[in-house]
Amino acid sequence: MFEQITILAPGLLGASLAAAVKDRQLCDKLVIWARRTETRVACAEKSWCDHVTASLPEAVGEADLVVVCSPVETIHPLVESIASHLQDGALVTDVGSTKSLIVRNCHTVMPKGRQFVGSHPMAGSEKSGLAHARADLFGGKTCFVTPLVDSNEQAVETILKFWRALDMEVATVSPERHDEIVAHISHLPHVLASVLCSFLSTKDPGWRNFAGNGLRDTTRVAAGNPDIWKSIFEQNREEIARAISQFENELQSLKSAITNGQTFDILNHLERGKAYREYLRPAGKMNAGEQT
Amino acid sequence: MFEQITILAPGLLGASLAAAVKDRQLCDKLVIWARRTETRVACAEKSWCDHVTASLPEAVGEADLVVVCSPVETIHPLVESIASHLQDGALVTDVGSTKSLIVRNCHTVMPKGRQFVGSHPMAGSEKSGLAHARADLFGGKTCFVTPLVDSNEQAVETILKFWRALDMEVATVSPERHDEIVAHISHLPHVLASVLCSFLSTKDPGWRNFAGNGLRDTTRVAAGNPDIWKSIFEQNREEIARAISQFENELQSLKSAITNGQTFDILNHLERGKAYREYLRPAGKMNAGEQT
Repeated sequence: MFEQITILAPGLLGASLAAAVKDRQLCDKLVIWARRTETRVACAEKSWCDHVTASLPEAVGEADLVVVCSPVETIHPLVESIASHLQDGALVTDVGSTKSLIVRNCHTVMPKGRQFVGSHPMAGSEKSGLAHARADLFGGKTCFVTPLVDSNEQAVETILKFWRALDMEVATVSPERHDEIVAHISHLPHVLASVLCSFLSTKDPGWRNFAGNGLRDTTRVAAGNPDIWKSIFEQNREEIARAISQFENELQSLKSAITNGQTFDILNHLERGKAYREYLRPAGKMNAGEQT
Repeated sequence: MFEQITILAPGLLGASLAAAVKDRQLCDKLVIWARRTETRVACAEKSWCDHVTASLPEAVGEADLVVVCSPVETIHPLVESIASHLQDGALVTDVGSTKSLIVRNCHTVMPKGRQFVGSHPMAGSEKSGLAHARADLFGGKTCFVTPLVDSNEQAVETILKFWRALDMEVATVSPERHDEIVAHISHLPHVLASVLCSFLSTKDPGWRNFAGNGLRDTTRVAAGNPDIWKSIFEQNREEIARAISQFENELQSLKSAITNGQTFDILNHLERGKAYREYLRPAGKMNAGEQT
């Protein structure tokens, strides 16, 4: 599919992607760029790594596809640094959890003949880092691809094919729509899990001994990396704040029903919630006829 | 341990308890009372069921221990119905998720020589009903036992032994303290999962196709039975409303930090949340030296 793919800043996602790409033989040569020496040493030992370097020009100079896997706040700076070193026809994408800021900034810095198309494979984990990398991280999961109106159609098509070749279910939406969607289905759940945990940490520490599976599952994502999530919250702050405000209204409404003993209203909340939860697709399965 | 144990109203918990009790030979005879014919027919076919009846006096007349497994709002009415049919020395307990109202009401209706001691094994599931029963539902989980100041000490001791014989980790607390604890670690997480789902159900239905594991785990409990949870919310409404209000303050504080770009405050929430989540005991493990 490609002669050379270069992955910048491999953590959990980048290293998993490298392993998956080589598993499926999507390129002849896989090159890794990493800032930290220990990451480069770890990558050099992997069977999926053909070459590893600390030099950005060397890493991207002959790449057909560059995938930027760094935390969201460093994606635009990295893309700006590599822009002038890209060969003609090179494609650049990323795996960032927010898209509006990243896509507009990266699109702007691309020289003629080079294309940036934003991506967001929803395949994270509360674990981070190279050590947890798995080639099967992507299969069956959603990948957003977020072209702009003036994105190159051929470039978008190639990026779509790339993620589909990893068995991902690809959805094409605008960067703004993407940020609205993930604010609701990913960032808001993370906010609630984190706030529930930070709230409970103010209570009797002995209570955590009584935790059942409900609390454990509800709060799993709160174990995620605070630096990564801080940047996501900052990059998508308007959509997240709006989603929180609407959630607060719904919570206020159930609290009032509980306080006032309004049985019908309590049941209504619980039944709507149950119906939604049961209609949520199971892991790795998209409902028939709804692929975007 | 007992000659006869009678289980009233077997659903997921009652049937799992019956299977576990017979597995561990905690009684010679296990009797089931169920209101619905189809439940009685299903129970009669189980190896753990020695006798099944629709008559409360027949069910409890020769029982050493009666375990009431009905939804919380019917525990007190059922205990009131059986009170005059209990033999001298009989013990009654329950598995209700709320305790203050139930324990005080049930304690009051016990005739001389019969004892009620409240219990709450934290071993539910979002699945309900006999069909999902499992003898291993209880091992390693927390069971609250909630005596009153004037509860019979021998009776309390026997109930503690009973749950420990099922490999549960038993915590003795007052009914009021129990309701405060579970409002925070069980009922509030359920409220948040349900409200998140009922809120998301007001949005584009296509979004559910993009759900990742984070949303799925965070909302799993929202698939629970609405009738059961409606009653829990009603029986523990003061503690739940108080926990929601305090949670709202914490959420408001993070929202404000996100809106105003206060990086340090955002990180502080995320880091406190992560620390709490990582200190939460894993499934089935109590931290050393903290058994109550």
